[in-house]
Amino acid sequence: MKPFLDENFLLYNTTAEKLYKKIEYLPIFDYHCHLNPKDIWGNEFFKNITQLWLTGDHYKWRAMRIHGVSEAFITGDASDWEKFEAWAETVPHLIGNPLYHWTHMELKTFFGIDKRLSKETAREIWEECNEKLRTPDYTPRRFIERSNVRFVGTTDDPTSMLEYHHLLQNDKTFNIKVVPTFRPDGALFIEKANYKNWIKELEIVSNVAINSFNELIATLKQRVNYFNEAGCCASDHDITQMIFKKTTKAEAEKVFTKRLNNEELSIDEILSYRSYLLVELGRMYSEKKWVMQLHIGALRNNNTHMQNIIGTDGGFDSIGDNNIAEGLSRFLDTLDMKNSLPRTILYNLNPRDNYVLGTMVGNFFEEGIAGKVQFGSGWWFNDQLDGMVKQMSDLANLGVLSHFIGMTTDSRSFLSYIRHDYFRRILCNILGEWVEEGKAPNEDSILEDMVQNIGFYNAERYFSER
Amino acid sequence: MKPFLDENFLLYNTTAEKLYKKIEYLPIFDYHCHLNPKDIWGNEFFKNITQLWLTGDHYKWRAMRIHGVSEAFITGDASDWEKFEAWAETVPHLIGNPLYHWTHMELKTFFGIDKRLSKETAREIWEECNEKLRTPDYTPRRFIERSNVRFVGTTDDPTSMLEYHHLLQNDKTFNIKVVPTFRPDGALFIEKANYKNWIKELEIVSNVAINSFNELIATLKQRVNYFNEAGCCASDHDITQMIFKKTTKAEAEKVFTKRLNNEELSIDEILSYRSYLLVELGRMYSEKKWVMQLHIGALRNNNTHMQNIIGTDGGFDSIGDNNIAEGLSRFLDTLDMKNSLPRTILYNLNPRDNYVLGTMVGNFFEEGIAGKVQFGSGWWFNDQLDGMVKQMSDLANLGVLSHFIGMTTDSRSFLSYIRHDYFRRILCNILGEWVEEGKAPNEDSILEDMVQNIGFYNAERYFSER
Amino acid sequence: MKPFLDENFLLYNTTAEKLYKKIEYLPIFDYHCHLNPKDIWGNEFFKNITQLWLTGDHYKWRAMRIHGVSEAFITGDASDWEKFEAWAETVPHLIGNPLYHWTHMELKTFFGIDKRLSKETAREIWEECNEKLRTPDYTPRRFIERSNVRFVGTTDDPTSMLEYHHLLQNDKTFNIKVVPTFRPDGALFIEKANYKNWIKELEIVSNVAINSFNELIATLKQRVNYFNEAGCCASDHDITQMIFKKTTKAEAEKVFTKRLNNEELSIDEILSYRSYLLVELGRMYSEKKWVMQLHIGALRNNNTHMQNIIGTDGGFDSIGDNNIAEGLSRFLDTLDMKNSLPRTILYNLNPRDNYVLGTMVGNFFEEGIAGKVQFGSGWWFNDQLDGMVKQMSDLANLGVLSHFIGMTTDSRSFLSYIRHDYFRRILCNILGEWVEEGKAPNEDSILEDMVQNIGFYNAERYFSER
Repeated sequence: MKPFLDENFLLYNTTAEKLYKKIEYLPIFDYHCHLNPKDIWGNEFFKNITQLWLTGDHYKWRAMRIHGVSEAFITGDASDWEKFEAWAETVPHLIGNPLYHWTHMELKTFFGIDKRLSKETAREIWEECNEKLRTPDYTPRRFIERSNVRFVGTTDDPTSMLEYHHLLQNDKTFNIKVVPTFRPDGALFIEKANYKNWIKELEIVSNVAINSFNELIATLKQRVNYFNEAGCCASDHDITQMIFKKTTKAEAEKVFTKRLNNEELSIDEILSYRSYLLVELGRMYSEKKWVMQLHIGALRNNNTHMQNIIGTDGGFDSIGDNNIAEGLSRFLDTLDMKNSLPRTILYNLNPRDNYVLGTMVGNFFEEGIAGKVQFGSGWWFNDQLDGMVKQMSDLANLGVLSHFIGMTTDSRSFLSYIRHDYFRRILCNILGEWVEEGKAPNEDSILEDMVQNIGFYNAERYFSER
Repeated sequence: MKPFLDENFLLYNTTAEKLYKKIEYLPIFDYHCHLNPKDIWGNEFFKNITQLWLTGDHYKWRAMRIHGVSEAFITGDASDWEKFEAWAETVPHLIGNPLYHWTHMELKTFFGIDKRLSKETAREIWEECNEKLRTPDYTPRRFIERSNVRFVGTTDDPTSMLEYHHLLQNDKTFNIKVVPTFRPDGALFIEKANYKNWIKELEIVSNVAINSFNELIATLKQRVNYFNEAGCCASDHDITQMIFKKTTKAEAEKVFTKRLNNEELSIDEILSYRSYLLVELGRMYSEKKWVMQLHIGALRNNNTHMQNIIGTDGGFDSIGDNNIAEGLSRFLDTLDMKNSLPRTILYNLNPRDNYVLGTMVGNFFEEGIAGKVQFGSGWWFNDQLDGMVKQMSDLANLGVLSHFIGMTTDSRSFLSYIRHDYFRRILCNILGEWVEEGKAPNEDSILEDMVQNIGFYNAERYFSER
Repeated sequence: MKPFLDENFLLYNTTAEKLYKKIEYLPIFDYHCHLNPKDIWGNEFFKNITQLWLTGDHYKWRAMRIHGVSEAFITGDASDWEKFEAWAETVPHLIGNPLYHWTHMELKTFFGIDKRLSKETAREIWEECNEKLRTPDYTPRRFIERSNVRFVGTTDDPTSMLEYHHLLQNDKTFNIKVVPTFRPDGALFIEKANYKNWIKELEIVSNVAINSFNELIATLKQRVNYFNEAGCCASDHDITQMIFKKTTKAEAEKVFTKRLNNEELSIDEILSYRSYLLVELGRMYSEKKWVMQLHIGALRNNNTHMQNIIGTDGGFDSIGDNNIAEGLSRFLDTLDMKNSLPRTILYNLNPRDNYVLGTMVGNFFEEGIAGKVQFGSGWWFNDQLDGMVKQMSDLANLGVLSHFIGMTTDSRSFLSYIRHDYFRRILCNILGEWVEEGKAPNEDSILEDMVQNIGFYNAERYFSER
């Protein structure tokens, strides 16, 4: 029996162990996360482990709610200790869920704590963590530095002034590159109630008036320039429905004008507007040599009652099942025909779409770019052992695994960098198994290159080729 | 090499074996099956093994048809011996199909027969079974008792008078609780030819006239009360298409009236009526603190020719692929907004929907109820080794496996209780593997609680909290 | 550690090894491939390994493009050596992709070369292969004979005169049966630009004028007769969208007439026409006792830019995600109701549809035909280790694996026969594992029959019963 979480955790053969040794200490290229640059800049101590662990972590909230914990102890008025205790009481029930691994990896890696969290150990772990959280190695910046991160790509609204990115980039005491990612959901979801407010914010930050569709496009382009100057090299999109409608500028313009005049839009109009604008944005990204990221298939805000209480991103999103293949093909092809398809990463939330994405990425290519269109790593609910194994196996079968840009952190937490370690172990074990089973040749140099590239260098290259 | 079907069948490590020992003899809480209460009440001897095994078992029928057996030997005029022989001749071809395991587990567990069924052994097994079927331990009630069943939830039409449930509940010689489950498909499938007949039957059994939609609702409520008094604590629904349309009462009423007047209904009207009525029913279940079961995604009656000959449920249903996420979300949310979402079990027939359900169940919750919305165990075609492993792994990754209410029998046969043993072995092996591979801690008390709860206590609690 | 590609490649236990020995040298019944009968007839030496390996192999082209190779070295003007070198340089990056296995199996089996292909070994392998390609054992016919093929079913347009099939059948020096397969996509895709040209070709080859739908049907029937006389025993269909609309002849006729008159067709009209014609064709196949093959779910021609340069089948197809269950059920049932459902093989490109097909095949049957409707082997992107394991496991769970007609070559290459060896190893290993794990009985005769039938005899029987 292998002990839980030992040094060879998830490594089941000597080839896997050997390969892991080659990438264990590689730096991390965190090209997509949801860390708040303000928090990195501020670099304040965490008051306690609840502040670090349970504020804003909708993964943990979901698990606690399923466990039947009262909302008071989740997002409510209970004290931080009470919330931690409720979480600790939940943890032993989570065997089999990635939270069980993440929790204990984070305790071990960052706090040197090798105990199982439970109601019984809650008090001592609370105290040990809180004590350490008052020491210099436990600030946001130190978590990033201790994780050997080289690059952080945050996720930012086009209306952001990126002030904290600028401050961080000018701060000589912090050497990790923190750049914004352009996420213009506000411009694309024209059907949302707050669309016009978003346009207003865009006007303010850009110091222009937006009374026509042309002005919207021009202003977005201005923001792309602004982001680009701040080191941005990627965009990100929430694609809940991947329907693409061939649309003329005049049609998109008409929809935009109707919306400004508060006229009701048909579903067709919404989709036409979004299709047209996506292509326009794709062209801007292509010009800047940015990477375009599409996160496809979330089903958002399923619980109206709770959304009214605690808002979006509270743990009430789940996985949708809209069909995506045709729309995605038409969208990418439209850009490709204009010679404007940027490097693109496709992420799917429903793993039943793995084969659609795994083959879609092979339809488009560019001489000299290995893996121009990428099938992104297991996203959100797929960011776990089985999900990662499936994503990497499917990618290997359908495409070229060795050009994979690897793990996406996609996290709001400074401790989530342990997921790169998790990912690397899984990667090494997959390859190790192939070798041990005679499915891959036992050629050290090829295998070592492969894990090192997937572990770090592919991503660095992919986001730097400009 | 492990011998076929030995005592450690499906248990591949010592932790698994140890855990299995802790639940091997647990009672069974059979919250959902299709046993006929009349048969339990009557408790008659089976004339022979064909009567017990091959009458009404559409799983076996399908396999025999695929094997090319003439319908005469399946549902036709052949003698019981001939049918048994045809089945015996089919069995060796079924290696890899769950029927192969079930058949031999049933022979071994209930009849003490450790031979492989085939054309060669057909005669001796026929005789040995039939001889035993004439002895007291081989009646319907004894099969249930010998399986250590504590609770049986049958599936019943709202028009049933539940006479056999009443008789059984008043029978001091039989101590197992047998309660009905409310399955109002007849009320919901307004597009079916027999809808008005069903309404007529409902009128008769309820002793009311139903001339308006209000009267329909009131009568269904009356039946819910009637079922509730008979110990019913759950409903069940066949959801072939999970489309939810926001519908007013006036709209639903209009559709109902059109139907009574034999006017043709549009697809939109059918869906509106069904959406509205489902919500109304959900509210009734919530008031009674019943469990609502949704069986999603069957594609029924694919073979018109055979349906015309032998009717429905003859083995001609298969798996559909309609999209379900959005409709299901809207339906559950509508009830939740009214504070009327009952405890709910979601079953999917197409395993490609596992991730939709596995995350949907986390969108809704209630303080104090662990696992309020459940992702039900592998249903029908998924009720096999791979299907169960996938359902439990997916549930574990996406939710909280330890709160899973476990195996659903869903069977028409008194011998199917061996599937609980099958399920328990698979469950223990999954956990055993996690422990042996260092993915879960080797903490006996947590693991034992977990398998015992999933094996019996979670279901008992879930259906008793009222 | 098992050496890469050793004699027990993919066989992980002694039962698997033992079973493999029983089928290693069985003949191959290649009921569906894309070999060009002209090439078999011509039997010309290959100028070099590039001509054999890289001309027309869109699998390799895709991989090279993902790797970033310039199109000049793929389908362009580079020399054959340069193309080979570009391929060789790509290969080490393909670990995990089936191309890695196929490449080295082909080198080993046909050329006796046991080296890994790479930039370093490119020159020596190029020379060794080219030298052998000048010897008598390396012609198209010899590749087929050396693979112990008994039957080749090519894929042919109804407008083909089948001249090379006739020549081959009359050639006493070549004893392998090569028969055509009827693939009337040209008649079904009425929406395509070249539809009327195709009709014109059909007129010419049939020596009739087609001015009415009746005449189209009659002419297709004539071609079916013509193909039948050339030994054809199967049809094949590219089903990109499995929507079935109940359609009268008058409706289909109207659509046909509109198309001849160059009027625009609605999507409904296109689907109606196709539905009607598919049924008509199914009836013709049934009369001839042909096998009907449906290849469901490709998403074709995703890259317009490249299609304009190199045409269709250039490696720009991927996997679609249209829903198929209802349409497929209605289509098969429509034929079945007319007592005209031929033996049918269903192939899906998206593995998420495995359970739909795996259960659909059990809805239709015929006395005396084991496995009348077949769930076809892993198609195209699924023709790899994981895809095959999944297809066979799913088939086993849902149906009767022992009646499976086994591997479909579906290849354009004379070397692809090694995929039968690949398939057989995987098959034997699946059964071997079941036995070793106590999931299947260790009964030699049953298991040996099973692998031999799936490996060869089932297909021979299935395509010969007429």
